[in-house]
Amino acid sequence: MERIEQQFEFMKEIDGLKKIGRQTYLKDASRKENDAEHSWHLAVMALLLQEYANEAVDVLRVISMVLVHDMVELDAGDTYAYDEAGNATKREREIAAAERIFPILPEDQAAFFRGLWDEFEEAETPEAKFAHTLDNIQPMMLNDATGGKAWREHQVKLSQVMNRQKKTAEGSDILWEYARENMIAKNVKEGVIIEDCKL
Amino acid sequence: MERIEQQFEFMKEIDGLKKIGRQTYLKDASRKENDAEHSWHLAVMALLLQEYANEAVDVLRVISMVLVHDMVELDAGDTYAYDEAGNATKREREIAAAERIFPILPEDQAAFFRGLWDEFEEAETPEAKFAHTLDNIQPMMLNDATGGKAWREHQVKLSQVMNRQKKTAEGSDILWEYARENMIAKNVKEGVIIEDCKL
Repeated sequence: MERIEQQFEFMKEIDGLKKIGRQTYLKDASRKENDAEHSWHLAVMALLLQEYANEAVDVLRVISMVLVHDMVELDAGDTYAYDEAGNATKREREIAAAERIFPILPEDQAAFFRGLWDEFEEAETPEAKFAHTLDNIQPMMLNDATGGKAWREHQVKLSQVMNRQKKTAEGSDILWEYARENMIAKNVKEGVIIEDCKL
Repeated sequence: MERIEQQFEFMKEIDGLKKIGRQTYLKDASRKENDAEHSWHLAVMALLLQEYANEAVDVLRVISMVLVHDMVELDAGDTYAYDEAGNATKREREIAAAERIFPILPEDQAAFFRGLWDEFEEAETPEAKFAHTLDNIQPMMLNDATGGKAWREHQVKLSQVMNRQKKTAEGSDILWEYARENMIAKNVKEGVIIEDCKL
């Protein structure tokens, strides 16, 4: 297959992300968002919030990473943050997906996308840490906007939220402080997040 | 309002793009896509297809532009390419939208996003031309993948397609050639696009 054909094959393949549902409701709570919408939202956030990264980041790399970070869910599906059983097999399912999906691209671009995904998963570079900060904060922002609908439905406890968010500050202390105050503390105070530990 | 609060206000405001429907079906024809999904798809395409731009492009600027290009549709709605009445008032409705939406951001970022949108609309820089090429080709790619469902429903004629695509080559001759052959000529041959002029 020619290079350009492989690229268009891939572009059609990833259209499927528009049907991979997440657990986060839209701000008007009318339905839950999907991976394509979520990735777009993160990319805009990267552009607008880069000034708060702890270390200077290459914003093109952050954006590239968030555009790609959920592509493995085409096969592996979305695993809810507080689904313990799902999270036990998540890594294995996602690696198998990466090994099928990225090689649809020409070899150099397959390696480039796989590299972006690996970097995100390893969460060690400033760009990957910042991408995770955005990925952690975006659902809390929407959850708070709906009055905590998803938190209520899953009876989420503060200890679960804090465990999920334990690395959010690594990408941005400022965004973590903002989210802790305006998204977490607020919803603990309102009785939406169950207070089973200290904030 | 503090800077960071303005930024989060904006991030919640644009969540509404996930509910602005377009006329393009997903590749499996199960439903039509929305602006957020479309913008994500274009951003990935920019990353993977930049090698085909006629002139060297700053890909971060192309991606930023496609992430932002449909935000005015929050108020103005999506105007179908072949809706003549809608297109007559489109520009006016979109400017009013830009004047409401971007100023939710801090002044510098409002100006930055307005600048991206204006540049896209003016379609004169290499980045804006390439962004338009992607924006024109992505719906044809999906339309073709569905067997031309939207083209059939609107009984679209070749002259309409060619008029809509008259600047696609300005951003990329190679992508235009590919699309003309594999998306347009193919669907004319199959009787999906009504042949009322020469290709």
